[in-house]
Amino acid sequence: MTLENQRASTAPRRMLQAAIVGAGGYTGAELCRFLLAHPNVRLTRVFGDSRAGQSVSAALPSLKGVCDLIIEPFRAERADDCDVVFLAVPHGTAAPLAKALQSTRARVIDLSADFRFRDRALYESVYGVHPSPELLDKAVYGLVEFARDRLKEAKLIAVPGCYPTATLLALLPLFARELVETEGWVVDAKSGVSGAGRGLSASTHFPEVHGGIRAYKVAGAHRHGAEIRDQLGYRADAAIKLTFTPHLVPSTRGILATAYGRLRSGVRLDDCIAGARQTYAGGGMVEVLGAAQCPDTLWVQGCNRAFLSYAFDTASEHLVAQGCIDNLVKGASGQAVQCMNVAFGLPESTGLPLTGMWP
Amino acid sequence: MTLENQRASTAPRRMLQAAIVGAGGYTGAELCRFLLAHPNVRLTRVFGDSRAGQSVSAALPSLKGVCDLIIEPFRAERADDCDVVFLAVPHGTAAPLAKALQSTRARVIDLSADFRFRDRALYESVYGVHPSPELLDKAVYGLVEFARDRLKEAKLIAVPGCYPTATLLALLPLFARELVETEGWVVDAKSGVSGAGRGLSASTHFPEVHGGIRAYKVAGAHRHGAEIRDQLGYRADAAIKLTFTPHLVPSTRGILATAYGRLRSGVRLDDCIAGARQTYAGGGMVEVLGAAQCPDTLWVQGCNRAFLSYAFDTASEHLVAQGCIDNLVKGASGQAVQCMNVAFGLPESTGLPLTGMWP
Amino acid sequence: MTLENQRASTAPRRMLQAAIVGAGGYTGAELCRFLLAHPNVRLTRVFGDSRAGQSVSAALPSLKGVCDLIIEPFRAERADDCDVVFLAVPHGTAAPLAKALQSTRARVIDLSADFRFRDRALYESVYGVHPSPELLDKAVYGLVEFARDRLKEAKLIAVPGCYPTATLLALLPLFARELVETEGWVVDAKSGVSGAGRGLSASTHFPEVHGGIRAYKVAGAHRHGAEIRDQLGYRADAAIKLTFTPHLVPSTRGILATAYGRLRSGVRLDDCIAGARQTYAGGGMVEVLGAAQCPDTLWVQGCNRAFLSYAFDTASEHLVAQGCIDNLVKGASGQAVQCMNVAFGLPESTGLPLTGMWP
Amino acid sequence: MTLENQRASTAPRRMLQAAIVGAGGYTGAELCRFLLAHPNVRLTRVFGDSRAGQSVSAALPSLKGVCDLIIEPFRAERADDCDVVFLAVPHGTAAPLAKALQSTRARVIDLSADFRFRDRALYESVYGVHPSPELLDKAVYGLVEFARDRLKEAKLIAVPGCYPTATLLALLPLFARELVETEGWVVDAKSGVSGAGRGLSASTHFPEVHGGIRAYKVAGAHRHGAEIRDQLGYRADAAIKLTFTPHLVPSTRGILATAYGRLRSGVRLDDCIAGARQTYAGGGMVEVLGAAQCPDTLWVQGCNRAFLSYAFDTASEHLVAQGCIDNLVKGASGQAVQCMNVAFGLPESTGLPLTGMWP
Repeated sequence: MTLENQRASTAPRRMLQAAIVGAGGYTGAELCRFLLAHPNVRLTRVFGDSRAGQSVSAALPSLKGVCDLIIEPFRAERADDCDVVFLAVPHGTAAPLAKALQSTRARVIDLSADFRFRDRALYESVYGVHPSPELLDKAVYGLVEFARDRLKEAKLIAVPGCYPTATLLALLPLFARELVETEGWVVDAKSGVSGAGRGLSASTHFPEVHGGIRAYKVAGAHRHGAEIRDQLGYRADAAIKLTFTPHLVPSTRGILATAYGRLRSGVRLDDCIAGARQTYAGGGMVEVLGAAQCPDTLWVQGCNRAFLSYAFDTASEHLVAQGCIDNLVKGASGQAVQCMNVAFGLPESTGLPLTGMWP
Repeated sequence: MTLENQRASTAPRRMLQAAIVGAGGYTGAELCRFLLAHPNVRLTRVFGDSRAGQSVSAALPSLKGVCDLIIEPFRAERADDCDVVFLAVPHGTAAPLAKALQSTRARVIDLSADFRFRDRALYESVYGVHPSPELLDKAVYGLVEFARDRLKEAKLIAVPGCYPTATLLALLPLFARELVETEGWVVDAKSGVSGAGRGLSASTHFPEVHGGIRAYKVAGAHRHGAEIRDQLGYRADAAIKLTFTPHLVPSTRGILATAYGRLRSGVRLDDCIAGARQTYAGGGMVEVLGAAQCPDTLWVQGCNRAFLSYAFDTASEHLVAQGCIDNLVKGASGQAVQCMNVAFGLPESTGLPLTGMWP
Repeated sequence: MTLENQRASTAPRRMLQAAIVGAGGYTGAELCRFLLAHPNVRLTRVFGDSRAGQSVSAALPSLKGVCDLIIEPFRAERADDCDVVFLAVPHGTAAPLAKALQSTRARVIDLSADFRFRDRALYESVYGVHPSPELLDKAVYGLVEFARDRLKEAKLIAVPGCYPTATLLALLPLFARELVETEGWVVDAKSGVSGAGRGLSASTHFPEVHGGIRAYKVAGAHRHGAEIRDQLGYRADAAIKLTFTPHLVPSTRGILATAYGRLRSGVRLDDCIAGARQTYAGGGMVEVLGAAQCPDTLWVQGCNRAFLSYAFDTASEHLVAQGCIDNLVKGASGQAVQCMNVAFGLPESTGLPLTGMWP
Repeated sequence: MTLENQRASTAPRRMLQAAIVGAGGYTGAELCRFLLAHPNVRLTRVFGDSRAGQSVSAALPSLKGVCDLIIEPFRAERADDCDVVFLAVPHGTAAPLAKALQSTRARVIDLSADFRFRDRALYESVYGVHPSPELLDKAVYGLVEFARDRLKEAKLIAVPGCYPTATLLALLPLFARELVETEGWVVDAKSGVSGAGRGLSASTHFPEVHGGIRAYKVAGAHRHGAEIRDQLGYRADAAIKLTFTPHLVPSTRGILATAYGRLRSGVRLDDCIAGARQTYAGGGMVEVLGAAQCPDTLWVQGCNRAFLSYAFDTASEHLVAQGCIDNLVKGASGQAVQCMNVAFGLPESTGLPLTGMWP
């Protein structure tokens, strides 16, 4: 089914009632953008403690004149009339909210890291004590293209991290098909600044970002490295050795993950491209480029699509795989809405922009 | 009718067949983005001489996997099955195409300057010889909020220039209501670089734009100044004295026009704000801010909305009026689609993004 | 004397001992850059309360390996061995420091607003109660090109504001020569973000600046408007009517001030250009462009030069004057060093980069 | 000797006469900036065929009012009075100029790739037929920190490529000291756009760069990969296996090269840091950061310094080494001037800015 057909078929349905917790940040802003335009959803409540009493459009200026909801303090029982609640709050904060919402009929889609690991010990080694470990095995890791079946029944969905989404979309087809070695991987990722969120810090102060390029949390210090290894290991059924280095580039949006690894003996570049194309056939939102092309984050600005590419350096014998997304869309809020669509049986791209804003 | 209701009511209709001439540039890219997502339109043909034979997605990378149309050389008869043809080509080039299309049933929406002036002599003093002056009085100037009635019957629509759109939205309510003087106006406008188009030039080469700010075509040299004066003069029924200075800022999108002028005796700031709000009441896509607020082009990135603001400097006795749009959307392709919607009796915002991509 | 000659003549002299109070901000960083490279200065002390105990290079990473001074808490007596002390602290904070330093032999160069107005009432109407009004009439307003004689004897120098520097360099020659009217002026200025300093705020958070353009403090709300009017009024011996609108553009450095006003009867554009050229003849750091040119802030990036241009819109009868500087250099720290050079009898451009970093 | 001492000792000398061929591009602009400010150099001639007859300041606007040299067509005999000639022209074009200049007394410093390889066959496999292969063994590869002795006598100096400079400064100490394996290396480099030069292309058109991140010439397609391997191989006396991936980031300047490889058995991170510090001890322009720090290209903007860092990922057993420079300065024109300084016995940093322009 093409994207266009999907759009056409979405018309006559009961409107889903949706709520967002934490609308004042960037992922909250994007959730509002998508949900307000979604033909099957009515955004009915917006929760947020620090901005409670304010209108959403006071917090998010692009919504002035479009949305007049007032932000209210979170109380689970106020979400009782909701079909779906999105949690756009920091890790550690999300889990108690998810727990409180278990008593409602709402399905919970959490954009934080709280339910991304199935293993409590692993979570705690990376993020510290888990507030609600008993929910861990109820959660579905919402990398949609690899979780459609499980998402249909999911009551609690963990939206993948932004870096993991870009990286896993490129690498999972290779690991799942046993095309590559499981050791020696390098993932060198570049992200726009919005990934750091709306909180102020010296490292996101305009004059100290603009014109510069820098790595941060190198050599295993970034938490998303653990998430990447966990997911790859689960698919490959092996321990993965991989170093992950995030870089900050002077752009608001976009992640480009460039991964370097080894093909298994006898595997060729074409097998990788073909494998990825098979993996994503029919989905419509992941595009695998031909061998001579490299994706640009500008191509996916504002939309939920991903571009992947594969190349092979015959001299050094490295596979070079790239995953390219908008960190706030496919890497966060767009994927969250895509998860919702699958969970409620809607066509996957409903309410999500078809194409990026280019240029 | 709210924006949301408009959306809901757009479902069951015959699909309009649309064509674009000149899809390889930025306004063409935006037209594709909107038309491909439009629930009542099918983009069936894309014409373009220099890229003929290429696929649209080779020219516009964000469309890879979304649109597989092949660009064909323009021939008017090939547009015979179209309801609407958008001309996204340079001035001087558009008029002959519009003339050739008169023999078809297609309504023509021209994004160039060729039909923006009603007066041939004025056009020729600014742009040089007009290729098809006999069409000038058939064209409707498509500043939608001021042209809804005429657009309904229009066979040829001239989409306003980007700077004029930002400026006129802010000033026309004041001139039409006789709230301001007609002399002594200063319009100091700032634009992102996409307004200069996709053609290469030293002035749009990244290293010579990034980090800099500059004016260009000052003191009456920019053609959009004439368009602004013409439209204001028409509404005010007076000759307008106004200097227009465009500036290039290191951003891809957005126009902020800051206009300075004099209130007529007895008029107060509140009258301006109230007048603008009345002018745009009900439309849903033009937002008039309160007295203490200033708009930011970031609020309208990628969407067809405009923000206006008004302030008064009591010491110097200047009114300060601002108009803020995305130059490629409300300043070009979005307004073109909005014109089409009105021309074909569709709700005005159909197929256009509700909110900007923020941040 | 050309710039090159000036350089050649600076060799054999006693080294001036210099101190900076407040080195942790952007103007402090630029002061360090210039003073460390200055052939006649030894930077011996850096004061700063909030960062006391830290090394300068911990606060200012570009100095790692170049400067190992430790920031110490300010005490006036510790500056006793200094010839010159630069105050790079906020207004209101600078005046008490300047007062404390009166007991030392050091000449004080204040980059804050505290001594920019000669009139206490005017200062207090703009900035609030002045901490040390008795010093106001000792201070010299350090717009170097108009203050060389007074700077030679000055014990206390007020470095002009960034917007006033850009504006006054363009307009003072016209006002001083009575070429222009004193009413009806519009100054529309655009600044990079570094002008807002190193303090964190939502308005300087990268994702909310990048890609956007906006005005702030319009219609008389920005304090630099008062400074501009005060200086122009002093030269023209008249009350000035002028509205000042600052805009923030997504760039780190640079101010472009575009001013609009009226020529006096009988005055022509050429008189303005010639007047400005005469004013700045021989100085070497202010460049007046020809009639057809517009300056770009990129041309002055990192250096102490200013570019000016003048144009005339014959239809609207507006003079359009532009002043273009690097806000952190000619608009702050570079001009401060230039003041020091004049005050100590050194060639004016000593220690200051000859040319901007282009691109 | 510290940087400051070096400065002090540069005063009384005969002025070197210098010429630049190809001043109209970015490396030419930077050469002008440094040479015009150099206390021991007089820039006497500027050659350039396409801009011949134009003034330098017409080509390079930041030089308006500072330099009034006229660009003349290249003729070798016109350089007869020069001590040094800088070639800032494309590869393939430089070699014939260098050959013609052999008849003069001028030492030639070539910023192109023409003399970077000692081996003709290697050069030709990468760049095509070499116009003057007989000069290859006369040229000295001017990575100053590793070539000081040879530079003293050099008549022909090949300034290293920008990516190789950033990469080699980080890796050469490790390879030369046999701290690392020679296979399995990944170099993932990020560059500002100025590295692509002043020539117009779609890939450097502002709207198609701003806001985006992309790789190009992956998997061995970029010529600088060969240069890196050649130099590492020469130091390590081994064939190097290394894949090099350049990325374009939306910034004008700066290269950050992040390299991933394996330590030899028994080698620890501290050995790498200590080895690099020993290598660069005393030089003053290469700074090795401590284990917990990452460099930012913003720290070196406009100056000739390099920052290096080393980290070790204990889980994946990768060494992560970073080299950070301004591509137009240490990666091109600054290093060229540094080469000249060494070649003529001047203190190495003479005429080069001490610190970067931060922010």
